[in-house]
Amino acid sequence: MSIRVGIVGISGFGGGEALRLIAGHPHFELVYAAGEGSAGSRLIDHFPGLPGKLAELVIERWDPVALPEIDVLFASLPTGASADALARVSRDVKIVDIGGDHRYVDGWTYGLADVWPDEIKGQTRVANPGCFPVATQIALAPLLVNGLIEPGNIVVDAKTGISGAGRGGGGGFSFAANNENLVPYGLLRHVHMPEMTTTIERLSGASAAGLVFAPHLVPMTRGILVTMYCRGSATTDQCLDAARRFYNNSAFVRVIDKPPQTKWASGSNLAFVSYAADPERNLVIALGVVDNLGKGAAGQAVQNANLMCGLAETAGLEGLPIWP
Amino acid sequence: MSIRVGIVGISGFGGGEALRLIAGHPHFELVYAAGEGSAGSRLIDHFPGLPGKLAELVIERWDPVALPEIDVLFASLPTGASADALARVSRDVKIVDIGGDHRYVDGWTYGLADVWPDEIKGQTRVANPGCFPVATQIALAPLLVNGLIEPGNIVVDAKTGISGAGRGGGGGFSFAANNENLVPYGLLRHVHMPEMTTTIERLSGASAAGLVFAPHLVPMTRGILVTMYCRGSATTDQCLDAARRFYNNSAFVRVIDKPPQTKWASGSNLAFVSYAADPERNLVIALGVVDNLGKGAAGQAVQNANLMCGLAETAGLEGLPIWP
Amino acid sequence: MSIRVGIVGISGFGGGEALRLIAGHPHFELVYAAGEGSAGSRLIDHFPGLPGKLAELVIERWDPVALPEIDVLFASLPTGASADALARVSRDVKIVDIGGDHRYVDGWTYGLADVWPDEIKGQTRVANPGCFPVATQIALAPLLVNGLIEPGNIVVDAKTGISGAGRGGGGGFSFAANNENLVPYGLLRHVHMPEMTTTIERLSGASAAGLVFAPHLVPMTRGILVTMYCRGSATTDQCLDAARRFYNNSAFVRVIDKPPQTKWASGSNLAFVSYAADPERNLVIALGVVDNLGKGAAGQAVQNANLMCGLAETAGLEGLPIWP
Amino acid sequence: MSIRVGIVGISGFGGGEALRLIAGHPHFELVYAAGEGSAGSRLIDHFPGLPGKLAELVIERWDPVALPEIDVLFASLPTGASADALARVSRDVKIVDIGGDHRYVDGWTYGLADVWPDEIKGQTRVANPGCFPVATQIALAPLLVNGLIEPGNIVVDAKTGISGAGRGGGGGFSFAANNENLVPYGLLRHVHMPEMTTTIERLSGASAAGLVFAPHLVPMTRGILVTMYCRGSATTDQCLDAARRFYNNSAFVRVIDKPPQTKWASGSNLAFVSYAADPERNLVIALGVVDNLGKGAAGQAVQNANLMCGLAETAGLEGLPIWP
Repeated sequence: MSIRVGIVGISGFGGGEALRLIAGHPHFELVYAAGEGSAGSRLIDHFPGLPGKLAELVIERWDPVALPEIDVLFASLPTGASADALARVSRDVKIVDIGGDHRYVDGWTYGLADVWPDEIKGQTRVANPGCFPVATQIALAPLLVNGLIEPGNIVVDAKTGISGAGRGGGGGFSFAANNENLVPYGLLRHVHMPEMTTTIERLSGASAAGLVFAPHLVPMTRGILVTMYCRGSATTDQCLDAARRFYNNSAFVRVIDKPPQTKWASGSNLAFVSYAADPERNLVIALGVVDNLGKGAAGQAVQNANLMCGLAETAGLEGLPIWP
Repeated sequence: MSIRVGIVGISGFGGGEALRLIAGHPHFELVYAAGEGSAGSRLIDHFPGLPGKLAELVIERWDPVALPEIDVLFASLPTGASADALARVSRDVKIVDIGGDHRYVDGWTYGLADVWPDEIKGQTRVANPGCFPVATQIALAPLLVNGLIEPGNIVVDAKTGISGAGRGGGGGFSFAANNENLVPYGLLRHVHMPEMTTTIERLSGASAAGLVFAPHLVPMTRGILVTMYCRGSATTDQCLDAARRFYNNSAFVRVIDKPPQTKWASGSNLAFVSYAADPERNLVIALGVVDNLGKGAAGQAVQNANLMCGLAETAGLEGLPIWP
Repeated sequence: MSIRVGIVGISGFGGGEALRLIAGHPHFELVYAAGEGSAGSRLIDHFPGLPGKLAELVIERWDPVALPEIDVLFASLPTGASADALARVSRDVKIVDIGGDHRYVDGWTYGLADVWPDEIKGQTRVANPGCFPVATQIALAPLLVNGLIEPGNIVVDAKTGISGAGRGGGGGFSFAANNENLVPYGLLRHVHMPEMTTTIERLSGASAAGLVFAPHLVPMTRGILVTMYCRGSATTDQCLDAARRFYNNSAFVRVIDKPPQTKWASGSNLAFVSYAADPERNLVIALGVVDNLGKGAAGQAVQNANLMCGLAETAGLEGLPIWP
Repeated sequence: MSIRVGIVGISGFGGGEALRLIAGHPHFELVYAAGEGSAGSRLIDHFPGLPGKLAELVIERWDPVALPEIDVLFASLPTGASADALARVSRDVKIVDIGGDHRYVDGWTYGLADVWPDEIKGQTRVANPGCFPVATQIALAPLLVNGLIEPGNIVVDAKTGISGAGRGGGGGFSFAANNENLVPYGLLRHVHMPEMTTTIERLSGASAAGLVFAPHLVPMTRGILVTMYCRGSATTDQCLDAARRFYNNSAFVRVIDKPPQTKWASGSNLAFVSYAADPERNLVIALGVVDNLGKGAAGQAVQNANLMCGLAETAGLEGLPIWP
């Protein structure tokens, strides 16, 4: 079975990772690529390793009402730039929006595929979670649904590689300024907070208004680690057991009993979660690791598209992480 | 005035940074260098840029009862290796212990030079704070002495460059395994916790038993950032004002109103602190940045030695950070 | 068709990359893993992302006369450690030696798969080229066989990522000492020189005694670039054309008209070659890029094994490079 | 003695490094800073560690005919942007042009301070060498003046950290695209070639038309290494001896008998040179290391200004390199 897919935002980091995954997918065939500045060039001009026919595909100027015949569209557009345009795409085309405009928006399913895969099956409009939220939510979900932590008292200290800032980063994301540097930013007002609050409340049934979120830029290209400080009286083993049960059938979430490192997930769709608790201090530390471009963007998007199309969830996503 | 100084542990990262600072110090003259594996070699064999006479100084085998005539000894030995040996050094020699064996030990002053400089003046035995604690304590001190946060409810998420692991790091600290990687470790049981707890209690007069400390290895050579989550109803401005008053006469602590980056301190003895508060959520975030080998080790040690010797606190420490 | 394969040296970087590729191979099934220090542990203890049955495979102590029933053995042992042992392996087992002991040794085929694939088909003992030589030889081959450069007057300035030093690197390869550092080494006496000289002479039919080789350690984990300065009167286009003809049927060698970057090959079995010539100065610059663990080690080894087993050369090697 | 100095181009990397060095200089006092985009802001807004009065200095809009009373101007402007403007500065102001517009231009002295310091003493217009040329020329000078290599047959393989691209680098110099990447560029047509050719011809008295120059971007912030392949029959010891005699009185050039690493010079005005020769192959390899922002830009500029002002050459430049 061949499913015809397109990518808009192909020259960005998320779009490029989607291209890499789709090129190795057993059922998806890339027939359409679109962009803005890159329109008119061929894929090989941006991805020098591409083989054969794919290399010669010409990037088209993005126009939501002039799409070729495709079954699935991966949209990797800057947040704020996709809402109007995607509304004009034919309902016959399934869309996964990797960008931020449709998270918890009416008419769109929030695609937290490892937590609620059944909700995504057969949908035609799915919003991919943000990179920070996906790591956070996967690690917290087993604790929240089992009542092991207080949903209103969670601190998320998040660390991300710099590709999270996107290709069009500008001088603030130059090598010289970021190498040998660690940069906190966006304290108390990050754009990802409402999304996380909504998910926590949905999973726990209680308010998450106390959520604290502090992101940091780490001098590496890929990878996200979230270190979360929660209140609860569970032991480390109780947390691990809850997660193992929760992710018993998961192809992508690994529950482990030591602190996970970001490189363990690099280039893959895997997520690692772990926990360290101290009941005497009413403390549960939860850790989540993903590749921000894999499970945090394009990997998650392909996983969602697999579910939407009735394919095996793992199709095209079985590549192991790159080490070292 | 020339003060004769020695360094033991010269071939480690802390000892090497002490050498760099002492070589540029207006009053200190390095006349003695000692080590273990490096004994018998010259300084130039380890530090290829050294000029003139200093280059030819031969490293001696460390023997605490066979020291030449020196006024100050900088001891940069692995934790656990210095207590017995330093007890045998003549009382005529002032000692700054950069290692971990004498922090809050009877007969030794805890050298938190930016917080209690007067206690250090004229002392002969000073224990340098650990690299994580110095960043933590400098940022928290103004909040604790002014009662702006609860001392029993502090979470410290700490991030360090890899030189903090020391030169003899072994395969776990290889470039290939650490580049593009972010590694949490030592959750709930780091060796630096008792030191921080003691300082917090001393500054606040209340128990700090609830302290949570989680360190992370960041793929950079130098730099520490601590992000601290505290409970309190102060505003951001109240926190900044308290810190500005507290460090009004400080030569090295910079209080700023935006999140500090580790590279701002690189190669210097500076510390940067900042705060972001949300009274509605009873939340105060405190940030502290140091160079782990500067203010976190050798810079702080020279600052302590200056105070012990009655010199200007800033002697030899006025070099600006390296940027970029 | 399932071909049973084993890896010895599984915990090293080359062995680990072989594991990653074999796990995604359509015909190879890993049934045996061996090591020294790692014997007795499971694969999951070293590769946290491994799925299912593979994760639980126990690493055995390497014993060449006690192998289970396997068809192919990938040997990734330190140079000097494999010759005696591999001589004792049953002739029924095909061997690809990723280590350095059998390059241009009687009874072994030198596995330069992109240049002479036909020589490798059906063999049972194949020596993988070294990482520097494979990049060098792939870029030079079209020039040498077409007589476009003087074989006796070639300068190879080679740059490698630090994983080339292997997992057991020691303090000399620590992050702190190598980050922000560029290190030339082994000038005029690198162990890879005889191998390159032999290949150049074989391809050109003339002496390569004038070969100059200078390697450099670059602060990155993966990747090799060789910049070669040759004498010849060809134009840039003549060089590119010769290479395009030479690699016309190649699945892995990309001939391009701009300088290739190491990251273009990262995680893949691709090689990139390019040329810039100035006939007025009798100068041809040849450039070659590979991933030292891909085409420079495990990727090349799988390619050789495919040829030895009569499989499609590309089986298990179609993954695109990781970008960024 | 206080000498009043100004910097134009203060917010660039070269200007910032000049600021750092001048702040620690015993005789220079910074009284004027100018820029384009940064005009109107204070120095502290760009350099958060600056102390006291310097921190509050307001950056002015660059206007060559409206300078305050200064003795020395350091000009760090983009190549192409400084020629007209600097021609309009009063002759009473000494100028060191760190940019590229006045190298080997009439009326300007080429400031290769370690090779011909006497030519610079007392001058009022000095052009700082480029970062690649300064490393190249310092390493080659002893060989050229002693006739140990053929001046017409030199290959320069140059590797630089990414700060060499300047602060306004744009997306091509982003962290994500450059980390874990090694990038050759500008083959056969780099802007620095004429400058090197002129110096080689001046030192040797013969044509350098055969010069080959190939630059590479290395994923590190600071540092330059040039590896040069020359023709000559000298031994390694003859080359080292020639260099030791040539730099006998040099404060900054270190001649060593092992390959130098870029980090040895980091943050300093040092240059390291070494040689490895093979008379049987008529080969001399010359190696040169500098910090591209130190000896390759601002350090060299301060050294030139010291000579122009009749100060000790080393004033303000005695800081040792940062290690690690």
